[in-house]
Amino acid sequence: MGPTTMNRREWLKLSAGAALGVRSLIPPNLSAAEQQEEVEQWGVFEAAFHGPSSGNPFIDIRLAARFICQHRTVEVSGFYDGEGTYRVRFMPDIQGAWTFETESNAAELNGKRGGFRCIAPSSTNHGPVQVAHQYHFQYADGTPYFPFGTTCYSLAFLGEELENETLQTLKSSPFNKVRMCLLPKPLGNTKLFAYPFERDAAGKNDYMRPVPQYFRHIEQRIQELQKLGIEADIILFHPYDAWGFKAMPAEADDHYLRYAVARLSAYRNVWWSLANEYDLIKTKTPADWDRFFRIVVASDPYSHLRSIHYSVVQYDYSRSWVTHASLQNYQFDKAAEWRQAWRKPIIYDEIQYEGNIARRWGNLSAQEMTRRFWLAIVAGTYATHGETYMSTDGKPVWSDGGTLHGSSPERIGFLRRILEQSTRVGLNEFEGSYYLSAGTPNELYLWFFDYHQPAEYVFPLPENVLFRADLIDPWEMTIQPVAGTFSGKSKLQLPGKPYQAVRFRKIA
Amino acid sequence: MGPTTMNRREWLKLSAGAALGVRSLIPPNLSAAEQQEEVEQWGVFEAAFHGPSSGNPFIDIRLAARFICQHRTVEVSGFYDGEGTYRVRFMPDIQGAWTFETESNAAELNGKRGGFRCIAPSSTNHGPVQVAHQYHFQYADGTPYFPFGTTCYSLAFLGEELENETLQTLKSSPFNKVRMCLLPKPLGNTKLFAYPFERDAAGKNDYMRPVPQYFRHIEQRIQELQKLGIEADIILFHPYDAWGFKAMPAEADDHYLRYAVARLSAYRNVWWSLANEYDLIKTKTPADWDRFFRIVVASDPYSHLRSIHYSVVQYDYSRSWVTHASLQNYQFDKAAEWRQAWRKPIIYDEIQYEGNIARRWGNLSAQEMTRRFWLAIVAGTYATHGETYMSTDGKPVWSDGGTLHGSSPERIGFLRRILEQSTRVGLNEFEGSYYLSAGTPNELYLWFFDYHQPAEYVFPLPENVLFRADLIDPWEMTIQPVAGTFSGKSKLQLPGKPYQAVRFRKIA
Repeated sequence: MGPTTMNRREWLKLSAGAALGVRSLIPPNLSAAEQQEEVEQWGVFEAAFHGPSSGNPFIDIRLAARFICQHRTVEVSGFYDGEGTYRVRFMPDIQGAWTFETESNAAELNGKRGGFRCIAPSSTNHGPVQVAHQYHFQYADGTPYFPFGTTCYSLAFLGEELENETLQTLKSSPFNKVRMCLLPKPLGNTKLFAYPFERDAAGKNDYMRPVPQYFRHIEQRIQELQKLGIEADIILFHPYDAWGFKAMPAEADDHYLRYAVARLSAYRNVWWSLANEYDLIKTKTPADWDRFFRIVVASDPYSHLRSIHYSVVQYDYSRSWVTHASLQNYQFDKAAEWRQAWRKPIIYDEIQYEGNIARRWGNLSAQEMTRRFWLAIVAGTYATHGETYMSTDGKPVWSDGGTLHGSSPERIGFLRRILEQSTRVGLNEFEGSYYLSAGTPNELYLWFFDYHQPAEYVFPLPENVLFRADLIDPWEMTIQPVAGTFSGKSKLQLPGKPYQAVRFRKIA
Repeated sequence: MGPTTMNRREWLKLSAGAALGVRSLIPPNLSAAEQQEEVEQWGVFEAAFHGPSSGNPFIDIRLAARFICQHRTVEVSGFYDGEGTYRVRFMPDIQGAWTFETESNAAELNGKRGGFRCIAPSSTNHGPVQVAHQYHFQYADGTPYFPFGTTCYSLAFLGEELENETLQTLKSSPFNKVRMCLLPKPLGNTKLFAYPFERDAAGKNDYMRPVPQYFRHIEQRIQELQKLGIEADIILFHPYDAWGFKAMPAEADDHYLRYAVARLSAYRNVWWSLANEYDLIKTKTPADWDRFFRIVVASDPYSHLRSIHYSVVQYDYSRSWVTHASLQNYQFDKAAEWRQAWRKPIIYDEIQYEGNIARRWGNLSAQEMTRRFWLAIVAGTYATHGETYMSTDGKPVWSDGGTLHGSSPERIGFLRRILEQSTRVGLNEFEGSYYLSAGTPNELYLWFFDYHQPAEYVFPLPENVLFRADLIDPWEMTIQPVAGTFSGKSKLQLPGKPYQAVRFRKIA
């Protein structure tokens, strides 16, 4: 095993030895200066150092740091940021005084010490999103998080103007997650602001030399998303490639992954999507994907959410390193079976696109997109939006970035508000229900009638619990309270039109 | 084998012997009176005779007749019509002079002779419907017939007023087939005009004594349907029973079938549906259904169309006695596979109901019903309509009979007209087509975009053939010709809304 395939933990062992292990039990006191630096919980602490710039610092130089707060120790990898600058980034997850000490095979970078005070998070900072209640998610501070994502593959590769337009659009959208690529995607004549790896005039990549400017730009976008309260579902590999990045040597893949994790993992809104349509990347084997997952698991000190997205060959989402399923299909009737099999949250991350392009996956009506979101929710799962309206001005379609044109986002926002006002723990499907429904037994019931339009229906509510009812029109976005209270078998008159919903909430 | 289980052919052999076989080669000349009676081709010739009325004439007396026209001989069973009257009914299928001679074990009914002249059919009489072009149908005279059916289970059991209302409704409807029961279906407080079998005050049925009045009434309705150009898809058994008819002894089942076929098969618009939801009739075994099919095959001289309809356990439609599949489901994406497996026409005979009742099969929107018809047609198959809008006046829902309330029939009529103006041989699915489409290679292409709304699409038309194109809106019922002619890959601008269709027809 050569040095480039050693992981951080192995390297620390070899280069720093046992001495640090003893030292870590006696955290150093913070100096007055160190005391002054404040970082909010789940914010980013960053330390920069000057070090060697000769040779290939990306592979020649090793840098790591051990962060300590009381009895808690977290080891993180540093990274080379170009021009002799090395950085260590860290996301503290408890409040209090943190100190750190570096280790490196470069004398200038070894034994650097420092610290900061971790303070309470600001009001919009709820920490990273984690799996909760088996099939759902929440922020680290316990705030509910229901993923209502969208897709902008090229969010960071469109140029300043269009990228800002994308962020502005997202700001006023209902979406709280965006699927975006870390490696570039060819996009018409759009010129890349930078390549991820050094590249000579003949187009030959030097994969072992990442371009810091490239990654800094993406980091900026991730931070801007964070300010908007949007999770960045970072796609690490994808098959849409014009430069060779989908067919790098194994050594380069692994180096890229470690470099990306070292740079990005301190941002609390990062999720790892190992790939988009992994099965279309013909240069990789199942063993490669196993190794990639292992690298991310080992390198990411915060255990950000991890999944992988496929085209045709569904990934085995029962595998231990997958935190949730990221599906490309719209088989909502299989949700119950898959929930049972995987015991994890399920996100239908690609359910085709609202739009009007000729590709059959890219021209759903807004009604059908809205319907699919409701079907996902009453299956106890989640869905991700995408849009591909034909561009008339040469601009990209929304699934790469830009501006939204469709009518489903507003309805998706309506559904998101309904969920947020109805539950803190997410909806679980009531299997065997006569019509599709989900909720929490004895507390919350959300029925969706899809293309059925019964004029009335006897809802099988539990006895001895009192409920209030609302008629919900998912397209008109109306919530109409029904007079009275309900318990046991309860007949309601319904509007006699399709795609209606009914919610029952326990009276507190 | 007792006399009641002997079939007509066996019985003829025993009772008439070889003498008739010789005589049949020398058809008798028609008398002047016989010459005068004219029956149109595929019309009904009927002869009545007086015979014994003591004992149980239904089982004691055997009557058959052999009809001869030139080299064509057809044997038919007669039936007892009560009060000492016996009848023989016959549907001639070629024009010319027909003679007949009866055989019976009753001297009064034996050796009766007669004849008629079969003349050309009237303009609205195209003969019985038959399978044609492998997956489709046509009338016996070669006129295309595309089944666009509806469902009125109780058409003949609603009482005079409602039955007339049903027929009036059908008259102005787009439907050309109706699925109706031969045995009664319990229907609220509706009193049956008669029972199919004699029944004593205690409710004990004498299954071996059919009630002629009952069957005459149904025959009247069948004839009225015929005048409206509507095929009567007669359901012989069904599980919705309050009187014991779904659990008769085998001997009674068989007798009932032979009696029904003897009475009804001369009506050209009769189809045989062995059962509705056969698998819910728990008193019958697979062997029973085999025997029933064999009886109908052996008893029906005209080979009317035969199928059987299920609830959950799909019948094996590859069996030789089934002329077409009669499905209860809406899995149109399996049509190609089933067409390959069965090599027969497929009718999705129950695809749920437009309506608003609480039962989940009974509250499709009109849009969804319309959509399902289109999906069936572009799968190279057919569908049958049903409607269940809640009754506010105590009247039955349409699926039993009465009045239509829905909005899909008009659209189904629109689709039927499109089919009739586009093809004589039916549409066959183009498998592997990018969007759903069907037609005839190099001649006719009908695309249906379902929930897709591409703004434009490059249609892969064949080279070297010139087509005209129409944009079709299945809901608005508009057909908009597109300027120009098309050949090879042809890009069309589309309306950018879902559920649209496009037709290409070869320029003659």
